[in-house]
Amino acid sequence: MVNSQVVVDQQVQNVLDALKGRTINHVYFVACGGSSAIMYPNKYIMDREAKNISSDVYSSNEFIHRNPRKLGENSLVILCSMSGTTPETVNAAEFARQKGALTVGFTNQPTSPLAQESEFVVKYLWGEESIAFNTNLGLLYQLTMGVLNVLEGNDKFDKMINSLSNLQAVFEKSNKQYESKALQFGQDYKDEKVIYTMASGANYGIAYSYAICILMEMQWIHSHAVHSGEYFHGPFEIIDKDVPFIILLGLDETRPLDERALDFSKKYGEKLVVLDAKDLDLTGIDEELKGYLAPLVLNNVLRRYAEQLADARNHPLSKRRYMWKVEY
Amino acid sequence: MVNSQVVVDQQVQNVLDALKGRTINHVYFVACGGSSAIMYPNKYIMDREAKNISSDVYSSNEFIHRNPRKLGENSLVILCSMSGTTPETVNAAEFARQKGALTVGFTNQPTSPLAQESEFVVKYLWGEESIAFNTNLGLLYQLTMGVLNVLEGNDKFDKMINSLSNLQAVFEKSNKQYESKALQFGQDYKDEKVIYTMASGANYGIAYSYAICILMEMQWIHSHAVHSGEYFHGPFEIIDKDVPFIILLGLDETRPLDERALDFSKKYGEKLVVLDAKDLDLTGIDEELKGYLAPLVLNNVLRRYAEQLADARNHPLSKRRYMWKVEY
Repeated sequence: MVNSQVVVDQQVQNVLDALKGRTINHVYFVACGGSSAIMYPNKYIMDREAKNISSDVYSSNEFIHRNPRKLGENSLVILCSMSGTTPETVNAAEFARQKGALTVGFTNQPTSPLAQESEFVVKYLWGEESIAFNTNLGLLYQLTMGVLNVLEGNDKFDKMINSLSNLQAVFEKSNKQYESKALQFGQDYKDEKVIYTMASGANYGIAYSYAICILMEMQWIHSHAVHSGEYFHGPFEIIDKDVPFIILLGLDETRPLDERALDFSKKYGEKLVVLDAKDLDLTGIDEELKGYLAPLVLNNVLRRYAEQLADARNHPLSKRRYMWKVEY
Repeated sequence: MVNSQVVVDQQVQNVLDALKGRTINHVYFVACGGSSAIMYPNKYIMDREAKNISSDVYSSNEFIHRNPRKLGENSLVILCSMSGTTPETVNAAEFARQKGALTVGFTNQPTSPLAQESEFVVKYLWGEESIAFNTNLGLLYQLTMGVLNVLEGNDKFDKMINSLSNLQAVFEKSNKQYESKALQFGQDYKDEKVIYTMASGANYGIAYSYAICILMEMQWIHSHAVHSGEYFHGPFEIIDKDVPFIILLGLDETRPLDERALDFSKKYGEKLVVLDAKDLDLTGIDEELKGYLAPLVLNNVLRRYAEQLADARNHPLSKRRYMWKVEY
């Protein structure tokens, strides 16, 4: 990929072409668990940027049963499942298509049931084979900004594509920068029974994902993603010197919420793991988009923290007792 | 109040009169903590019923900093703060008003800052002085259904007003019905360090409120409101025979999600507290609206559970270490 002439992913472009001249008044982001969590920053972008289009994030089965009355031919429904087999998400695609909505399925498996039930498919890569540009989040951001560009003339699309093309280098720098901190985290927190995460704005979904997928699912550690703004209206009564909090500080407009939560936590807590996006080297990311892209980098860093925690606890991230093993 | 001729609260009627002939395309539900949690079922109703109006629930400071681009003169912003002094919510009212939105402040204190910053004020009652019809949730439901009636001709408004007028009797029956179960809950769970709550659809906000306000804030017990649909995509790996879950089963369209979560939890968990709205005597509640009104009754029952837990733990619900006591 040559930076001087970066182009949007062709699969995303196909969706954008289909949107031209079509009336869309609502975008539904529909998925489960970790795939749902990555939708949150996309809604943040929609809320900040959309002049007319509204949006919602729903867990797939909630979406189907809630059955939003507005859902119809003026809706765009964006779904995601890595394997493409998550039954609730496959059913949600079918449900939305039958309502006349335009459906786009993000998956690593382009012949999967989700791909078959979706009008458009975006295959994303993951793990060693991927670069930031073609991960689930990288491609979702291309689509979200593309939707805003095509339907409302938003001018940040090209900047987003360019910034995403430079993101892999940022990931690699951040991996190096946080290598020893991640190792230390694993050592320091390996015996904890409860670890909270906290964030707001564009970063809340990352905190949510870390709580439910990494800590609860993959490590069997109690957790809860606390919203930095809600913290002072209940949750903060839980903190004391023995209660660990991972606090994310973003670069988006809600950063003051995180800063306030951190300031308070420093006074009464002693087990604070602070990931501040200000410390990142974001060379190549457009100044205007740093707030939107910070969660992707923080997410990447947090994955390193997860790997080290798993190592220190001798509890592999792949270990499950129920998922894929028993009936549910 | 005579059931044969029940009328909507006059303060709510004033808002509805102001809406006539006005274009509203989005409703923002804005509050913090427990006052935010009661907004969730209102969004559920909006999603289910609204043909054209979209809606969002935001924590007050997130709302201000996120600064949704759509917010403007075609927006209705509904805020809530019991004391009317919650700074973030007061600021949110001012912020929304300056954007040209129609603002309605729900508060127990009609001369409070929130009341002063809001174009319309709805004073609600609480505690001993209140009946279900004039609580925060009772009045919010009147407004939500009224908005749908005035702006879109929704025909469930009268049924809602009638049902709400019969709700206090339902509360009183449920208090009696669950008296000994609440006592038992306090005894059985008084030594727990972590208690999860779980629900979906119209009831999720109730589970959220119980987690962050009752358990974390008022009892300093670790908690997290798990969404029944998300449960199988991460959180369920945490359950085993020693991990308590309070599971709410509603009467709304998402009930199958809760039933599935309960079925699984019964296999692998042993500390399950199940509150099933099917067990309630909902005489006087319109059949069509039972799903919407169940969360109000479950919330009332859960309050009894909270009181008994506090008693058994000798940790009054009024006890705080930070809230209202230190700077934050």
